[in-house]
Parts: sequence; structure tokens; C-alpha cells
Amino acid sequence: MNIEGRNQVIEAIKNSKTINKLLIDRNFASRKDDVISLAKQNKIRVEFMPKKALDELSKTGHHQGYIAETAEFEYCELSDILQVSKDRGHDPFVVLLDSIEDPHNLGAIIRTCECAGVDGIVIPKLRACQVNETVVRTSAGAISNVKIARVTNLKEAIDFFKENGLWIYASETGGEDIYKQNLTGPIGIVVGSEGNGVKPSIRAYCDGIITLPLKGSVNSLNASVASALCVYEVLRQREHS
Amino acid sequence: MNIEGRNQVIEAIKNSKTINKLLIDRNFASRKDDVISLAKQNKIRVEFMPKKALDELSKTGHHQGYIAETAEFEYCELSDILQVSKDRGHDPFVVLLDSIEDPHNLGAIIRTCECAGVDGIVIPKLRACQVNETVVRTSAGAISNVKIARVTNLKEAIDFFKENGLWIYASETGGEDIYKQNLTGPIGIVVGSEGNGVKPSIRAYCDGIITLPLKGSVNSLNASVASALCVYEVLRQREHS
Repeated sequence: MNIEGRNQVIEAIKNSKTINKLLIDRNFASRKDDVISLAKQNKIRVEFMPKKALDELSKTGHHQGYIAETAEFEYCELSDILQVSKDRGHDPFVVLLDSIEDPHNLGAIIRTCECAGVDGIVIPKLRACQVNETVVRTSAGAISNVKIARVTNLKEAIDFFKENGLWIYASETGGEDIYKQNLTGPIGIVVGSEGNGVKPSIRAYCDGIITLPLKGSVNSLNASVASALCVYEVLRQREHS
Repeated sequence: MNIEGRNQVIEAIKNSKTINKLLIDRNFASRKDDVISLAKQNKIRVEFMPKKALDELSKTGHHQGYIAETAEFEYCELSDILQVSKDRGHDPFVVLLDSIEDPHNLGAIIRTCECAGVDGIVIPKLRACQVNETVVRTSAGAISNVKIARVTNLKEAIDFFKENGLWIYASETGGEDIYKQNLTGPIGIVVGSEGNGVKPSIRAYCDGIITLPLKGSVNSLNASVASALCVYEVLRQREHS
């Protein structure tokens, strides 16, 4: 898989992703360039090529002169996520995505989760967007800094986290007002797909349902906005209440 | 301007936007269709045409068989926004956008503001995205239900709102932790552009700066996510603290 774009490539190097080769616009070869020095420091092979060749290789159309060829995206195990929480010395904080389909939404959610200090994200293997170039690009580099696990069935992940002491809440309409619910302690938030929300079978499996207040007539938030509001409310309660 | 997409058209009719004509896929003519009955009730002229003709007219590529031809988007005056607050019987709640450039971001912000019960949005006339078809579409119909004012200079809007008793906060890095700041009472939130944040000249003009906590290494939230977190924190403090 390729990582494209200046900041994305910098994040990938800094987070020691396995980069096979770094392709850079040859016009940048003679100038002082942070990425090139960073690559040298990290003993990464750099190849300069015409911008046009990069354009042809680019899958996102926004390479900005930098493409890193990396090994395939490495999903982690569920237990790796709990290890992150342990290393960070706080209660586990996990997000489970029930079938997000749009790569821009998935990338945006990963970016926000990283900002909010989420320890890891779980996505289903089937009928959901997987990590691809667009996801990496939309995540603005965040993907290199957040663990993502992939499971056949979200229920197995929920079981695993419940067994490890987490409380699992689905973000959906018709539940408890999120601002009245205690969200401190070890927690997992399930966010549904753009069109259908959290599947009823998954919803029934959760410990509770949390609902964002809606004051307008449109009455539905974008999936990436809804998940941002949920993870930041967890962060707020952890640190400010 | 056209409004495209099923839900978008329904919202436009419900909110009595001036619709000159409603164009509908002729395959829908014979079926029971909410939009057609709604148009009849509201005495809106309906014209059936082949899907291909709609495809050609569509500017967003997502008409779903429904395009409403409306008068140009009607921006409101700043005072209209305060009237909305008055009608709703609560303290004014305004969002000012400092040069959002991406129509998808603008549409997403409008959608979230509508959900959070924001009374109105202010955008600059120059060097910023204006309300176009993509904005209308991304707003998921919300645009028909939220006032938008347009000003030559954001400072004049800030002056106007300050004179009317609002406290104006810029959402930016380096300010007071948003979760520690009292955001109840009449309020305006200034959100900056995707790349540059709130301009220093505008920032200096505000009553304060509020900052979202960032726990990761990427350290920047998407403009539409950042504004969502701000407006929902205002809503939370108004209703739950």
C-alpha cells in the first residue's frame, strides 16, 4: 500500500512504518527538505522521479510530490489495543465501527479518534470499508499512530472487551442522553454506518445506548461528526468531570 | 439554484423555500411517492422527465430522481438571526465561519449547526465558499432550516453581535480549554478555515479563545469536526450544566 502526501509520509516515517521505498519529486532533490533528511536518518531508500511519474502512481491524486511504498497495512489483534491502554496508563478507550462504508468517513473517524486519545479502533472484515489509500490520506497521517483491529463479527470483539471489563455503548437514537450518562471507566463506543446506524443485533448486545441531542428538523448527524462528539464526550468526562 | 436529492427536496418544500418547479424522474410518476403528494399539497408545479435529462441537469451527480428549481439562495441579515433566537426564546447562539473554502466542509458545518440548534451562521462574501449546489446537498436539507448571513468583513458581524450582548469566542489552539470555559449565555463561535484557522486579526477581536484538547500526535481536527465539537459543547452547557 502507498502512503501519499507530505504530512502523511512524515507521520509514517516517525511512527516507523515499514517503508520499502520513498518516491520523491525530482524537483525537490536539490533543495533542503525535511522529508529527505528524515528518510536519510531512518536509512530509507529514496528514489527521485518526475512529477508526472508520481501522478501516474498516485491513487489519491494528492501526493504533493511524496509517495511512500509500504508493506500492506498491518491490522492488530484486539489484545494489542488493551496493551496500548496499559502502556498509556489509563482505562481502555475503544471505538468499534459497525460497517462504515465511505473511505472518507473512515479516514475522518480515525483522525478524530487519534486526536481524542482513543487506544484502538475495530472494524468488521466484511461489508465495510477497509483501510486503503483514501482512508490513509483522509486520516491526515493519524493512521500511523492508532491501532486498528479487524474482526469477522463485531460481537466477538464486544465479547472480548466485555470480558476485559469494558462497558460497551452504542451511539444511536432513542437511548440515554449522552450528556447524562456516566462514560468514565473502561469503555467501548459502537458507531453505526452512514445510512443505517448500529445494527439491531449489535445494539441489543451492548450495555447501553447513548444518544446525541438533536434540536433541528434534519435530525441526523454525519457518521464522522457523531463519532467525534461521542469520543470527545468520553475524553471530557475523563479529564474534566 | 437547484436543490437535488430526495431528502433535500422534501426539506425545501417543508420549509417553504420558493420552488419554481420540481423535476422528477418519470419512472416515479405512476408510483405512490411522498414527494409528489407533498408537492401537490403545496401547489408546486411538477414536471416528469427521463432520468437521463435529470443526470444532465444535475450539478452534484446525486439527484436520486428529484431536482427542485428554486430562486437563488436567500441570505439573511444579521438582525434576522437574533430574531430567530428571540422566536425560539433562548439566548442567541451564532456561528461565524472565517473563510471555509471547501463546499463539503461548509455543508457539513451547516448540517451540524442545524442539529445543535444554532440560530444562524455568518460567512464572509469574499475568499470563502458561498452557498452552492454542493453545499446544499452536503447539508442534507439542513440549509432550508438555518439562517445564513453574508458580510463583507467578519469584524462588522462581530461588532454587531457584541453590541447585542453576545460573547464571541474563536476556536483555535493556544487558548482556554473549551471544557473549562463557561459558554452559557448569548454566544458566537468563530471557526477558522481548513488550513489556517482563525485569522490573527479576527482572533484578536474576539472576547476569548477556546481550545479543544488534542491527545495524539497529528494534532489537528478537520474544520467540520472542530466546529461540531464546539457547538455541541455550547448545547451541553446550556442544557446539562
